[in-house]
Amino acid sequence: MRIMILGGDGYLGWATAMHFAARGDEVCVIDNYLRRKIARDTDSEALSDNPLLDARCALFAAHTNRRIRCEIFDLAEHDRLFRLMEEFQPDCAVHYAEQPSAPYSMKSFAEAKLTLDNNLTATHNLIWAVLEKAPDCHIVKLGTMGEYGTPNIDIEEGWIDIEHKGRREKFLYPRQASSLYHTTKVLDTDLLWFYVRTYGLRVTDLMQGPVYGLATAETDIHPDLGVNFHYDDIFGTVVNRFIVQAIAGIPLTVYGKGGQTRGYLNLTDTLQCIELAARNPVKPGELRIANQFTELFSVNDLADRVKRVGDAMGLKVAVDHIDNPRREMEEHYYNVVRRELPALGLEPHPMTDEVLADMIQRILPLRDRIVPARVLPRVAWKNRKRTG
Amino acid sequence: MRIMILGGDGYLGWATAMHFAARGDEVCVIDNYLRRKIARDTDSEALSDNPLLDARCALFAAHTNRRIRCEIFDLAEHDRLFRLMEEFQPDCAVHYAEQPSAPYSMKSFAEAKLTLDNNLTATHNLIWAVLEKAPDCHIVKLGTMGEYGTPNIDIEEGWIDIEHKGRREKFLYPRQASSLYHTTKVLDTDLLWFYVRTYGLRVTDLMQGPVYGLATAETDIHPDLGVNFHYDDIFGTVVNRFIVQAIAGIPLTVYGKGGQTRGYLNLTDTLQCIELAARNPVKPGELRIANQFTELFSVNDLADRVKRVGDAMGLKVAVDHIDNPRREMEEHYYNVVRRELPALGLEPHPMTDEVLADMIQRILPLRDRIVPARVLPRVAWKNRKRTG
Repeated sequence: MRIMILGGDGYLGWATAMHFAARGDEVCVIDNYLRRKIARDTDSEALSDNPLLDARCALFAAHTNRRIRCEIFDLAEHDRLFRLMEEFQPDCAVHYAEQPSAPYSMKSFAEAKLTLDNNLTATHNLIWAVLEKAPDCHIVKLGTMGEYGTPNIDIEEGWIDIEHKGRREKFLYPRQASSLYHTTKVLDTDLLWFYVRTYGLRVTDLMQGPVYGLATAETDIHPDLGVNFHYDDIFGTVVNRFIVQAIAGIPLTVYGKGGQTRGYLNLTDTLQCIELAARNPVKPGELRIANQFTELFSVNDLADRVKRVGDAMGLKVAVDHIDNPRREMEEHYYNVVRRELPALGLEPHPMTDEVLADMIQRILPLRDRIVPARVLPRVAWKNRKRTG
Repeated sequence: MRIMILGGDGYLGWATAMHFAARGDEVCVIDNYLRRKIARDTDSEALSDNPLLDARCALFAAHTNRRIRCEIFDLAEHDRLFRLMEEFQPDCAVHYAEQPSAPYSMKSFAEAKLTLDNNLTATHNLIWAVLEKAPDCHIVKLGTMGEYGTPNIDIEEGWIDIEHKGRREKFLYPRQASSLYHTTKVLDTDLLWFYVRTYGLRVTDLMQGPVYGLATAETDIHPDLGVNFHYDDIFGTVVNRFIVQAIAGIPLTVYGKGGQTRGYLNLTDTLQCIELAARNPVKPGELRIANQFTELFSVNDLADRVKRVGDAMGLKVAVDHIDNPRREMEEHYYNVVRRELPALGLEPHPMTDEVLADMIQRILPLRDRIVPARVLPRVAWKNRKRTG
């Protein structure tokens, strides 16, 4: 198939690009290096320096004889996106091209504005590029489980049937996120659903949980083809951060009580999910929403696991409960329906001790590059003072 | 009180500014004349030419000795908004500053993009101007009943208690609008609610139905202080459009079956609602949502009323059912809860035959200015062809 990957320089974008290219699909990646710029601006650079995207595409081609087309531009340049869409005619467009950091989006007005503008503009321009230039293209959009927040009822898969005063209606499941970043994904969902039902767009919206992991079949082809491994408070997700803390001898930083429960998945399972969605497109006018994770853990569970595995490897891991920089419930009900991706054939790879040990083994040689200041929270949600 | 009115040049904005100024409140209006520009660009100019906003403020001051401060700039200039917020320190900011036309937002990509960018940027910049410079300011935001769409269950007032699999949770009522313009208001609500619950903003979100009417106590002070009366398919709401059609001898254009039911209110009741909201601010961290209308009518009901009143005045009014240019349900369940504004003291002024006759009397002298091509739909929702 012909597949366009928006945000192809990212942790998931690059792994996805290689995954499809290795299977013989025609891949075109787009990126504007926004994440690299933010990482420099916030002292949150990845553990290893990855070559730029065009260089990685060239390296991948040299080792695999599979070409990945690389286009570097900002999706705000809608003319350029429209032209590329017309020319490339993708069967599927995978949309990762968003500012993905919750703490960054909560730093101040400037970062909030950048996040809102960048994410909504990218989504809206993509919608119209498809409508105008490749109307049969199936959009696979990365949403987040964070859109739902932590409601006191079961989290259904994107939709909910409400019975109210003796009548019934089906709605988008009400979303209520805990950062501006996550809220921009709620707005994306609203926008996509509007255009799906009005103009017959084809969309799969994947509500993904935090992803962990370093390796895919393709990252191991060459060290410079690895993923961007972020372990900082801005771009690092919690599992990656705990692994680095364990290695650097820093106590694992559990935010608050640690009862926060989320749905996690391995990077390789993300690739499986994206491929299942892409190879099973929805009909025109259909918005399919899938909850994308394989296992539920609380932060305390994760800390215990990383400690157990790290200790067994001689790391002497400590766990520290620190003041929660975020506004979120630290103990809550969390029961999530998950049917769509298993029905498409997802075979989950659980987070075994071996998986965690492999991550630790891969990071150990890079121990000296770890900057301890980056793994502690530098952005707080709560510190706005009212003057009134 | 000190009150800032964003979008002060509009149909409602200008009437609101005069209303508060006449009562001795300190008023500051902001506008960038976007509506005037769009009206010129789309051949949708108001029935009478109104002077620019600063000239109207000067005229109002000359006749009433009440000053209205006038600032002409685009709210995208956030620095300027922040400075003004810091200096003026409003108790209340009434936010009308959005591209308000559903058909305009559906014309093509350019208009959709302008609508999304303008509306979200204005709302987000206002939120942050308040957070940073006047955190006790109460935001009174104009939403729309159109955010809800036409669900098959009762429309509650902004929120809904959902009982699901034996557990309960309160959510924002799920919204599902039928134009991009209305969808931007859904996104506004999502954004406002995020900042309310995260940073303790004070917000009233008014879900307003279509407004009709020409006159308030202040518009009659001088002919150049009148409202912008739009009767076109872009900015004209249905009642205003029907009145003009009746006068111009054009059959009233009912879209489709005409069973579309909406909640309407008189311009003077809009002013009452805004004043009730502004003088009864909510607490920090509270989002009050009110359904703002006084009566429910179907489009067929409205056409019958205008015909009856027009015929009695000798106009010989015809009614024509034309192909619906929009995508909307033409017969549907519609039962809407409405408690907040009546509880604050709203005294509704119903749409009597006298009210319609007064509107007709006021427009009759302007009959020769009516441009018939402007009252027929020029934008269709449905005309996008899929190539696949």
